[in-house]
Amino acid sequence: ALIAVLPGDGIGPEVVEQGTRLLRAVAERFGHSFELVEAPMGGVAIDRTGTPLPPETLALCQRSDAVLLGAVGGPKWDPPAKVRPEQGLLALRKALGLYANLRPVAPFPALHEASSLKPEVLRGVELLVVRELTGGIYFGEKRRDEHQAFDACVYTEEEVVRVVRAAASLARARRKRLTSVDKANVLETSRLWRAVTERVIREEFPDIELKHLLVDACAMHLIRRPADFDVIVTENMFGDILTDEAAMLSGSIGMLPSASLGANRRGLYEPIHGSAPEIAGRGVANPYGTLLSVAMLLRHSLGLEQEARAVEVAVASSIEAGALTADLVPSGVRPLGTGDIGTAV
Amino acid sequence: ALIAVLPGDGIGPEVVEQGTRLLRAVAERFGHSFELVEAPMGGVAIDRTGTPLPPETLALCQRSDAVLLGAVGGPKWDPPAKVRPEQGLLALRKALGLYANLRPVAPFPALHEASSLKPEVLRGVELLVVRELTGGIYFGEKRRDEHQAFDACVYTEEEVVRVVRAAASLARARRKRLTSVDKANVLETSRLWRAVTERVIREEFPDIELKHLLVDACAMHLIRRPADFDVIVTENMFGDILTDEAAMLSGSIGMLPSASLGANRRGLYEPIHGSAPEIAGRGVANPYGTLLSVAMLLRHSLGLEQEARAVEVAVASSIEAGALTADLVPSGVRPLGTGDIGTAV
Ligand SMILES: CC(C)[C@H](C(=O)O)[C@@H](O)C(=O)O
Ligand SMILES: CC(C)[C@H](C(=O)O)[C@@H](O)C(=O)O
Repeated sequence: ALIAVLPGDGIGPEVVEQGTRLLRAVAERFGHSFELVEAPMGGVAIDRTGTPLPPETLALCQRSDAVLLGAVGGPKWDPPAKVRPEQGLLALRKALGLYANLRPVAPFPALHEASSLKPEVLRGVELLVVRELTGGIYFGEKRRDEHQAFDACVYTEEEVVRVVRAAASLARARRKRLTSVDKANVLETSRLWRAVTERVIREEFPDIELKHLLVDACAMHLIRRPADFDVIVTENMFGDILTDEAAMLSGSIGMLPSASLGANRRGLYEPIHGSAPEIAGRGVANPYGTLLSVAMLLRHSLGLEQEARAVEVAVASSIEAGALTADLVPSGVRPLGTGDIGTAV
Repeated sequence: ALIAVLPGDGIGPEVVEQGTRLLRAVAERFGHSFELVEAPMGGVAIDRTGTPLPPETLALCQRSDAVLLGAVGGPKWDPPAKVRPEQGLLALRKALGLYANLRPVAPFPALHEASSLKPEVLRGVELLVVRELTGGIYFGEKRRDEHQAFDACVYTEEEVVRVVRAAASLARARRKRLTSVDKANVLETSRLWRAVTERVIREEFPDIELKHLLVDACAMHLIRRPADFDVIVTENMFGDILTDEAAMLSGSIGMLPSASLGANRRGLYEPIHGSAPEIAGRGVANPYGTLLSVAMLLRHSLGLEQEARAVEVAVASSIEAGALTADLVPSGVRPLGTGDIGTAV
């Protein structure tokens, strides 16, 4: 299998290094051969080539079985800069047709203490957010003139259908409960979203229990009764906000993996955290989100379920054993570095 | 002073009843005369007149010094219905030019237990969200054809300037720290927002410390380190989501008041909770959000600071004394009803 590796910016290279170590260990242990090819994307690509997603990087990703990404962005390339790292990520998601972004949140009991939520609220939490990733206001027309700015939010029926199908199929293998999140009392795109979701579930997934929730109410329930949720499906921007919020259930944003999938098996795997420039290069970043993204890569793009489980078990034991980075340790306990965690797993 | 009273739908009438009792008590105690005039708005207005904001209701609000509102909405008028209660609320905010929505979050220590967050996270939290209320995707053009839907998000420079000024003026009387929340790495409206905010603060509020935060990061920090925030200013939709989330810091969404202000003194005051149709009519709704909205009304529209403080002190003592509704009591403790709370305060 060919795996494109895009370390990106900030702490990206550090966490991805642990991801590739893990991939090599899996290959060796289970007798696979993974070809790992690195390429520049994001700020580092802007600096080297002037563009955040060089054609060679895109071509590599297109012929790969899977893409492993660290993180992109940093103050150096922030607006008002015209060429920005995030444009590369958005273009890559779009070019690979990765419309379904899976963000599982299943807090480890050993990390309940690291969360700002009470342990009794975290008990039994095992939710999955499926975020639409190639539509909505992220990709709509944008305009700016001297005195005003404009962003268009557009959703087509087909865009909603496919991501709802993906989410409902995943719900079928879980607790069969789907919560669709929108703002149908205000937005036209949300009313389309709700109507299409209703229809897809009624016609194709009669065994799935569907509920609708307004995005503001969801932001509330996510921290009040998170254990109530099974699968949540929502549009691009709402998914962005709600998953960063939900990350707090797991103790640290550094814990959460993600998989971005499309019509075929090729997927993009990245921790949901950002490039954290303030701690970059110091070897203190939390690599668990990346390691868990590797598990998702093995499962969804390579079909290696057993290997994926082995990685998840290794991560869980290493956390139980107290191998924790600075974002996770209780005060007074000495944290481990990024590389130590990789070694432990 | 003339105060328009719009009970609205669901639990709206119950909580507003306690609000008007409180206004009458304040009038009597401090020797004021408040004229309270009730009018239909929302679902109740649709049922009676076919429109959620009847011209007579709007006219009443326009000649009032302040408007006290309960909540609007309910399953009866949900989409696909074409005429909906929320349209009345949005039209009212727009018609009165109420562009700055103040949502203070200052958890009462006695309610730390009711929150799903750990008490040590809640300690010292005293933040104020200033949400832009008459622009953005809420009010942009909307279109729907057979296979797609469209919402426009537009912000003009002037719309950003005035709400940032309002927020910065409020910050000046507090800890002088302003966090502006946007999604400038993706949205053009956010880049305008950020540029204008920078300029207004630099030119007019050099004494205010300004930070920018992406909306996803803010959703995270709000529950991780909420005590870090002083004043947050953000656009309409982000403000909607973040304030429902922030409400969880105070133990219940039923606790939070809001004030919507414009260029003159006239304001609209409402608890931030919804119409909660599932508990309506049972006398169990939490009226504190409405009672605290009355305090804001006295302060911002009537200029009665002393009376506002008296109400806030009464609310605080009543909470300390354990006068709590079902959403707030620890399990095993008997909750009070909506009316009992009003009596207690
Ligand atoms: C970097 C940014 C464009 C991106 C997004 O908003 O999608 C990030 O926040 C994420 O959630 O993956
Ligand atoms: C009822 C709805 C239109 C409203 C909004 O989204 O503004 C409500 O959620 C609020 O926050 O006041």
